[in-house]
Amino acid sequence: MRTRELREEVFRANLALADAGLVVLTWGNASGIDHDLGLVAIKPSGVSYAALTPENLVVVDLDGNIVEGSLRPSSDLPTHLELYRAWSGIGGVVHTHSIYGTAFAQAASSIPCYGTTHADFCPGGIPCVRALTEDEVDSGYEGNAGKSIIEHYREKNLKPLEYPGALLSHHGPFAWGKNAAKAAENALILESVAKMAFLTRELRPDSKAIPGYIVDKHYLRKHGPNAYYGQN
Amino acid sequence: MRTRELREEVFRANLALADAGLVVLTWGNASGIDHDLGLVAIKPSGVSYAALTPENLVVVDLDGNIVEGSLRPSSDLPTHLELYRAWSGIGGVVHTHSIYGTAFAQAASSIPCYGTTHADFCPGGIPCVRALTEDEVDSGYEGNAGKSIIEHYREKNLKPLEYPGALLSHHGPFAWGKNAAKAAENALILESVAKMAFLTRELRPDSKAIPGYIVDKHYLRKHGPNAYYGQN
Amino acid sequence: MRTRELREEVFRANLALADAGLVVLTWGNASGIDHDLGLVAIKPSGVSYAALTPENLVVVDLDGNIVEGSLRPSSDLPTHLELYRAWSGIGGVVHTHSIYGTAFAQAASSIPCYGTTHADFCPGGIPCVRALTEDEVDSGYEGNAGKSIIEHYREKNLKPLEYPGALLSHHGPFAWGKNAAKAAENALILESVAKMAFLTRELRPDSKAIPGYIVDKHYLRKHGPNAYYGQN
Amino acid sequence: MRTRELREEVFRANLALADAGLVVLTWGNASGIDHDLGLVAIKPSGVSYAALTPENLVVVDLDGNIVEGSLRPSSDLPTHLELYRAWSGIGGVVHTHSIYGTAFAQAASSIPCYGTTHADFCPGGIPCVRALTEDEVDSGYEGNAGKSIIEHYREKNLKPLEYPGALLSHHGPFAWGKNAAKAAENALILESVAKMAFLTRELRPDSKAIPGYIVDKHYLRKHGPNAYYGQN
Repeated sequence: MRTRELREEVFRANLALADAGLVVLTWGNASGIDHDLGLVAIKPSGVSYAALTPENLVVVDLDGNIVEGSLRPSSDLPTHLELYRAWSGIGGVVHTHSIYGTAFAQAASSIPCYGTTHADFCPGGIPCVRALTEDEVDSGYEGNAGKSIIEHYREKNLKPLEYPGALLSHHGPFAWGKNAAKAAENALILESVAKMAFLTRELRPDSKAIPGYIVDKHYLRKHGPNAYYGQN
Repeated sequence: MRTRELREEVFRANLALADAGLVVLTWGNASGIDHDLGLVAIKPSGVSYAALTPENLVVVDLDGNIVEGSLRPSSDLPTHLELYRAWSGIGGVVHTHSIYGTAFAQAASSIPCYGTTHADFCPGGIPCVRALTEDEVDSGYEGNAGKSIIEHYREKNLKPLEYPGALLSHHGPFAWGKNAAKAAENALILESVAKMAFLTRELRPDSKAIPGYIVDKHYLRKHGPNAYYGQN
Repeated sequence: MRTRELREEVFRANLALADAGLVVLTWGNASGIDHDLGLVAIKPSGVSYAALTPENLVVVDLDGNIVEGSLRPSSDLPTHLELYRAWSGIGGVVHTHSIYGTAFAQAASSIPCYGTTHADFCPGGIPCVRALTEDEVDSGYEGNAGKSIIEHYREKNLKPLEYPGALLSHHGPFAWGKNAAKAAENALILESVAKMAFLTRELRPDSKAIPGYIVDKHYLRKHGPNAYYGQN
Repeated sequence: MRTRELREEVFRANLALADAGLVVLTWGNASGIDHDLGLVAIKPSGVSYAALTPENLVVVDLDGNIVEGSLRPSSDLPTHLELYRAWSGIGGVVHTHSIYGTAFAQAASSIPCYGTTHADFCPGGIPCVRALTEDEVDSGYEGNAGKSIIEHYREKNLKPLEYPGALLSHHGPFAWGKNAAKAAENALILESVAKMAFLTRELRPDSKAIPGYIVDKHYLRKHGPNAYYGQN
């Protein structure tokens, strides 16, 4: 099967969400794209993580047509597809209802960059995207969720791979990365950073984002052209 | 034994409570009803989850007479029976002292619908039922607890399967569903939603319930006649 | 060895503290008394729970003289002995630095009875005993800690087995029971109740203790002469 | 290999961080020094804890020259080296982004000594070191982080082994001890104390440090020349 590698990777990314405690029951989903094939593999809707296999993932094209699989894809598929179509640099997308990230989303609050753990992840606040209007909800809810994220990034001039996660107001976190594994990892980092930010704000309600020169130092030592964190 | 299937299901639902971290020691209990037999199986009182077996569950009729079993049934049995008698559509009932749900109950606060995780569960706030009066406590405490829930649902015109969980003021959560497994699942969702709501309120004390059109979209995509979440 | 049974029970009680997540590293200790022998078995000081065996527990008489064992007993032994000497009805004592119980102790706050989970444990607030004076700290710190608990119970006319746990200001929880297993169980209940009370107060800072008729109902259905919770 | 014992010890200390839940993904690192050899073993940068072996640790001299190992050392190595060079009494250093410790660091707040759990660890507040200036960040960030800790201890006249952990403003905790195992243990204690302090402050925002005579009693019964906690 030509999608075997993709399925394996997306399968493992979905399990990584469950192992990291980011999902409850069947909530959450991970997908990945094979750019050469133009195909996306995604978790089937409402299937428990224990019952998930590489084989029961659903494979669709970028228009959402099912190419392989007998199950219905995640209801959030249109959000994933919007992101893949708009951002050719990403290879995986993850959605969770992780507790602290969702709490910030429910409070319709972005997550300010309160420390270096956050700066290691992205060079500024984690965006909180506006709630959808009634019209947007009525006319293709899940697709419009993706469009609202893309609109936010365009308006604020944010690069998707520099800010690899965002909150949807009233809803919860989406994260992405160069592949599905990285997207799942980013979902975990987002949740950890959200918990730290929650506690920071409780300790000091008027906490401010840290100075830009510390943000830049941490972000660039890990992600810039002269990065010196990690092994390559 | 004609109650074998029911016992198995109720046994698994009780274990699911323990596995999900919703109970401490012997707290909490799950029951299920076989509508054809008119019999209810429930956890015995004060027995540890490790010592629980399908065989030591207690089977009673709808008047609470013990039909099978040598142990005393959960002291909350009369609450379960009131719910089964009033609401013929439900097949399982669960009671827990899960931490966040109990905290809202102790604060005598309903849980506002702050986000889509909540709206996936029920189409409005999770009800908090009034405390019992001294007379009600003196004259059949546990049965009156059930009656107060039923009264609340009737007065507010709430459908039990649309709002499959509620808080008893000063006490804790009750949840139910079309069977015992679903009731246990609903107890877990209630606790997750309660934790998210707690954090949301800490982050933004004046948080409001989300707009009705988002609530309806989420609730109906999962539960309505045109639901498209899950596999059927 | 005539203390074999006592050692086994105290060993299991110490492990129960670790299994319940109430202790970090070597913090905390459980002891038990054999009233017939007049001997107390207690955890050795600073030994990790993984290295604990029934054999390396320390056995002392009620004056603290080591009767069996080559290790030094827990430094909190004098607190345990004061409680055993003053309260002949108890058979086990536990001390932990469990997180939420300790937080209340550090805030020098008793734990009001905010709900029925608490009322199932004791029929009123969990006491917070005053901090020791400099003189008391200088002249037998650990013994005076025990004396301050006993003094508090005498002054407030509290029965030790009705209120089987208390907080020492600035320090943390002590719990006890009719044997070591029950003392460990009470330490776990105290921590659970403390967490619920913490969250309740966050949700509603002006929360009040629940009405006495609900407290009594719950306490007595579990502990009174006409108790009907559990199997006997 | 002459560094075999050192590698083993540092390997186990790194795993202890992961086992204690103090690290997420590849965050955090532990090192140890062999004073006779003048060599430091440290976690390689960005390697997962699951992939860690005694063999893939990196061994450097006190100037940071790699003596053994083919991987790049932790990017925080210069901080570790500054501490080893300044404080000859320490044998292990640990850095984590543990949640509560990091929250205090992000709030740029020291941790007041609110109770005896804290006093068992160090005889006063856990220091929070000032943020680095832009110049310090630009000219050897990680080394200057170490220097700022050392400067703080010198100015406040704090002894490193009496206060075996500190917070870097905006960043997170560093801990140390007479060897790597002890440094990892101190990182765990710091996190536990931080969580208790967080909760204490939530319960009582105007909480004060406990009286000095209680601090001294606890600190000295565990660490002073007449210590009587533990087995020697």
